[in-house]
Amino acid sequence: MRDVAVIGIGIMKWGELWSKSFRNIFAEAALNAMDDAGVDKIDSLYVGCMTGGLFVGQEHVGAVMADYMGQKNIPAAHVESACASGGIAFRQAYMEVASGMSDIVMAGGVEKMTDVSGDGATYALATAADQDYEVFHGITFPGLYAMMARTYMKKYKTTRRELSAVPVKAHKNGSMNPYAQYPFPIKLEDVENGVKIADPLHILDCSPITDGAAAAIVTTVDIAKKMKKPYIRVTGTGLATDTIALAQREDLTWLKSTELAAQRALKMAGRKIGDIDFVEVHDCFSIAEVIVSESLGLFKKGQGAKAAAAGETALDGKIPINPSGGLKSKGHPVGATGIGQIVEIVKQLRGIAENGRQIKGDLKVGMTQNMGGSGASAVVHILEVA
Amino acid sequence: MRDVAVIGIGIMKWGELWSKSFRNIFAEAALNAMDDAGVDKIDSLYVGCMTGGLFVGQEHVGAVMADYMGQKNIPAAHVESACASGGIAFRQAYMEVASGMSDIVMAGGVEKMTDVSGDGATYALATAADQDYEVFHGITFPGLYAMMARTYMKKYKTTRRELSAVPVKAHKNGSMNPYAQYPFPIKLEDVENGVKIADPLHILDCSPITDGAAAAIVTTVDIAKKMKKPYIRVTGTGLATDTIALAQREDLTWLKSTELAAQRALKMAGRKIGDIDFVEVHDCFSIAEVIVSESLGLFKKGQGAKAAAAGETALDGKIPINPSGGLKSKGHPVGATGIGQIVEIVKQLRGIAENGRQIKGDLKVGMTQNMGGSGASAVVHILEVA
Repeated sequence: MRDVAVIGIGIMKWGELWSKSFRNIFAEAALNAMDDAGVDKIDSLYVGCMTGGLFVGQEHVGAVMADYMGQKNIPAAHVESACASGGIAFRQAYMEVASGMSDIVMAGGVEKMTDVSGDGATYALATAADQDYEVFHGITFPGLYAMMARTYMKKYKTTRRELSAVPVKAHKNGSMNPYAQYPFPIKLEDVENGVKIADPLHILDCSPITDGAAAAIVTTVDIAKKMKKPYIRVTGTGLATDTIALAQREDLTWLKSTELAAQRALKMAGRKIGDIDFVEVHDCFSIAEVIVSESLGLFKKGQGAKAAAAGETALDGKIPINPSGGLKSKGHPVGATGIGQIVEIVKQLRGIAENGRQIKGDLKVGMTQNMGGSGASAVVHILEVA
Repeated sequence: MRDVAVIGIGIMKWGELWSKSFRNIFAEAALNAMDDAGVDKIDSLYVGCMTGGLFVGQEHVGAVMADYMGQKNIPAAHVESACASGGIAFRQAYMEVASGMSDIVMAGGVEKMTDVSGDGATYALATAADQDYEVFHGITFPGLYAMMARTYMKKYKTTRRELSAVPVKAHKNGSMNPYAQYPFPIKLEDVENGVKIADPLHILDCSPITDGAAAAIVTTVDIAKKMKKPYIRVTGTGLATDTIALAQREDLTWLKSTELAAQRALKMAGRKIGDIDFVEVHDCFSIAEVIVSESLGLFKKGQGAKAAAAGETALDGKIPINPSGGLKSKGHPVGATGIGQIVEIVKQLRGIAENGRQIKGDLKVGMTQNMGGSGASAVVHILEVA
């Protein structure tokens, strides 16, 4: 396989984008990525999107976006693994370049979630869970993660205050991210006094509904060198699945797909988890970040929330988690989230994170963890400075 | 890139499958493919599906199917390019094997279309067209293809009788396919006396709504040889897009994405169109098969329908088209269609097509052409005997 690198990233301001359409927001991020890479043509396109069908009545999203961004006739396809769709797009772009099929491939992600009314967004998101054994019976995602949170907190004697440290840290980082949906700090009390969504999760334990897009340009290391562009190497990719229904898992306090995806990516990169300088993880709920941090091997079982409360996951901590602000503060346009993580890792490794968000020290290796549903899919990528 | 081969195919009886669920039908085809290949484990899974979200309220289809078919924890992803989703799944499986990432990969496709009520299926299918410039204003697919048919028939002085030959030939072939939804012959008069759907298209010009699934097991030629299985080589893959909206095309009587995808696949395989012994093409409407056959280069412009009427595309014709019965007679479970085409090509090249459907002579090279929407995507594959 050929060595692969990222030579361009593009993002745009995430939020409730009433004045921009589904294709508008994708084109904005995609053209930003092409500008950043200094290319005016791509060989192929992957678009991660969870459900254009349910959110905006548009499938066939690969062709739509290739056309609308001015790249008519190129190979283009849409990929989906619920909220891990962006990570899948990046993985497919990696494979297409690594295989030798194409030289310059865009991995993009997009979701327009605020155009549906009533409980439309909740229904659309619930299609990431098991329709037959979960959704049909009435549960939605806050309920699924609440069961994980309750089980975890009881098993490990985790306090409410420890869990609250996770979104507080997210918003502190996100307050320095000009592209974040909610770029402001919050207090521990704000989390704990917020309305309950599904006990024990309050509203600020939950990531929001977001419109947004992001894109990355992937090529070979050799081409990147010839183009004399700053490039970041992609050294590992790992994808794993688990049971779709939560009830069929052996352990509600562990994410097997995340553990396996990380092991696969680390093995491919020839790295151990201790080599990772910082991570972007899938904090769709506060408890998700906690369990993910343990399933990746960053902390021992039961220590994830305590570590966050002790500041170990802060920008200046032992292992910074979600310098971007994470899904919680930056926003969670589901299909775009995995690519948004890549954008942040590349920025940090290039040393160009905005507004004091740059992690201090000599960053060498970053990792993304992007997850679908209640963890039935997880995609992990490892990126390194050249 | 490594040389790639198909070592297993699986299909099941397509139709209105009221007693089988979305995941049931996929598992049935997938396990048939694994039996055929003689493997009990796969390294990775791609599932082509147009819109599980709109048809059955289930996205995250890769993880669902990996779990339900007994392959929990493997990498799995869902891919989509409307009715070309199956072709995309096969292309991604090809790339994953060719790149060296994985050895045994399943490319599957599935759609459960009859569980929606009212005009739900029409709405779901329309998401393959341009939501902003076409669907919002009320047009659906029969209308789009009717405009292509009217323009073509006027330009080339095609008669109604010539066009009718296409579905008649499809049903003749499909009557010999035990997996077909409508395995019976029809007459020219049946087509012409059928209810009009969108003038000039009558009901028998249109492919049906279908529940169904299909799967193929892809590996390297080296592994296939070691396994001592009959294998069919995959020598070319081509994917191309076009404008999503029909109104933005230069020519309604030509499918540019099909032309480009075929050129790309032929170049990769080192073949010319004259080397192809038979094809499976995307006859979602009778006019689609006609224009596709010309855009592939099988016939001159304006000659596709006349060639069908002259018997040149029959099983014993110059270039047999759709020996399976095509989308028209075999059925069109949109996400599965592209894999269903692969199943037929492999059967024909192995010489095992059922009930007298086997094309006579020494078949060496087959081609599939799978298309999304009104041709905004096209995927072409070339398969050859070892």
